[in-house]
Amino acid sequence: MGLLSPKQIYNYYFSKDRAFVREIKEISGYVPKEVFLYYLALTHSSSIKKSRKEIDVARECNERLEFLGDSILDSVIAEYLFKIYPLKDEGFLTEMRSKIVNRKSLNKICKKLNIDMLIQHRQSGSVNESMYGDALEAFIGAIYLDLGYKRTKMFIHKRILEPHIQLRKVEHQVISYKNKLIEYVQKTKMGLLEFEVVGENGDGRNKIFRIQAKVGKKVLGVGEGKNKKSAEQSASENALVKLKELS
Amino acid sequence: MGLLSPKQIYNYYFSKDRAFVREIKEISGYVPKEVFLYYLALTHSSSIKKSRKEIDVARECNERLEFLGDSILDSVIAEYLFKIYPLKDEGFLTEMRSKIVNRKSLNKICKKLNIDMLIQHRQSGSVNESMYGDALEAFIGAIYLDLGYKRTKMFIHKRILEPHIQLRKVEHQVISYKNKLIEYVQKTKMGLLEFEVVGENGDGRNKIFRIQAKVGKKVLGVGEGKNKKSAEQSASENALVKLKELS
Repeated sequence: MGLLSPKQIYNYYFSKDRAFVREIKEISGYVPKEVFLYYLALTHSSSIKKSRKEIDVARECNERLEFLGDSILDSVIAEYLFKIYPLKDEGFLTEMRSKIVNRKSLNKICKKLNIDMLIQHRQSGSVNESMYGDALEAFIGAIYLDLGYKRTKMFIHKRILEPHIQLRKVEHQVISYKNKLIEYVQKTKMGLLEFEVVGENGDGRNKIFRIQAKVGKKVLGVGEGKNKKSAEQSASENALVKLKELS
Repeated sequence: MGLLSPKQIYNYYFSKDRAFVREIKEISGYVPKEVFLYYLALTHSSSIKKSRKEIDVARECNERLEFLGDSILDSVIAEYLFKIYPLKDEGFLTEMRSKIVNRKSLNKICKKLNIDMLIQHRQSGSVNESMYGDALEAFIGAIYLDLGYKRTKMFIHKRILEPHIQLRKVEHQVISYKNKLIEYVQKTKMGLLEFEVVGENGDGRNKIFRIQAKVGKKVLGVGEGKNKKSAEQSASENALVKLKELS
């Protein structure tokens, strides 16, 4: 773990929080300096008394740290993919990243890292699974504020990407509703599937395309997106829902 | 500029690129180490011969660097806002950031930093304004790869946020199409404006709401979004376009 600062030595050997400090060290690989950041990262808003004012909830739960950790995670993965795929274009990189950081996979990784055991949340009622991914992001935000960008990057490489993400598998992972719809239309011999642009709003980054998925004159679904590809995806998803082909 | 490495001294005083190196130093405050990164950041895809294969275009234009720089910029602004607004919740921080990094403002800042003069692009035809914001993001990606996170953060603080972003002004900046539509409907005495949820697809992070803006039975516009608020915004924007109230 490298040379420890006096504060880290205190936290690890003498502080009253030392059990928690050792758990954090197990997870992150680093002895924390500012222990309160990790407590904050692991405090779900549901554990805070409803009677508190909104301003207190913002200060005492992990949502602000999640906001920070989410973008640090995006940056680290952007660089990772940028370097691993020197010949791929930015569309490929964007798609890969969004497959890696999807909620389901973050929820799973949170549990594999045993972060889930430490989350403070309301015990009663059903647990919202996305709590886990959120806590992982907040945990990343805490490491960043506590120990800086480099160590956060190391944590993400060594504990998240290398052990839990198989890039070859992610590459082949299809999140294409369009393909699913094409298959369905072929299978049921409905006719020729077409995608028609029925509207464009805004310009530049704010441009929105509106696209219909249709067979002959029958509109199966409509969707919008920032580019034609994502509008087609959305129209296909919409069609699949209407066709009751998506659960 | 601190102590220079041998490579930086060479680049600044002796290299055949030294005129370019000095221009970069004027803009970023740092003498570059890997000059080719900045050339890449300033190469718009339109300047690359159409005959080249896609794989070459990906390697030779700034889009990959833009992907990287975009998320680094997001991270730096996330931390900046996190620290400046210790009592605000994550919804506020997200909204502030999206107002700061909107395409228009990035385009403007690119020009204020004189980065626009250095962009290589196809001279003929009309210039797509968003090229400027894209180049700024790619430039940030180049600084990051060349000099690391800390200096990129300093560049963003000293050359972008502090001189060009007035937070008080951004706080009060309204990007609400909904408010604009409400005003229009009141002004023209059309009747009571209502927003109706007409569809919900997906779940969790992928949930999409579909909302109609209407007055009585007349549908003014339809929109989709990840939450009701953004679907209302999109429906309002759509309505304003149809009403020819947006230029």
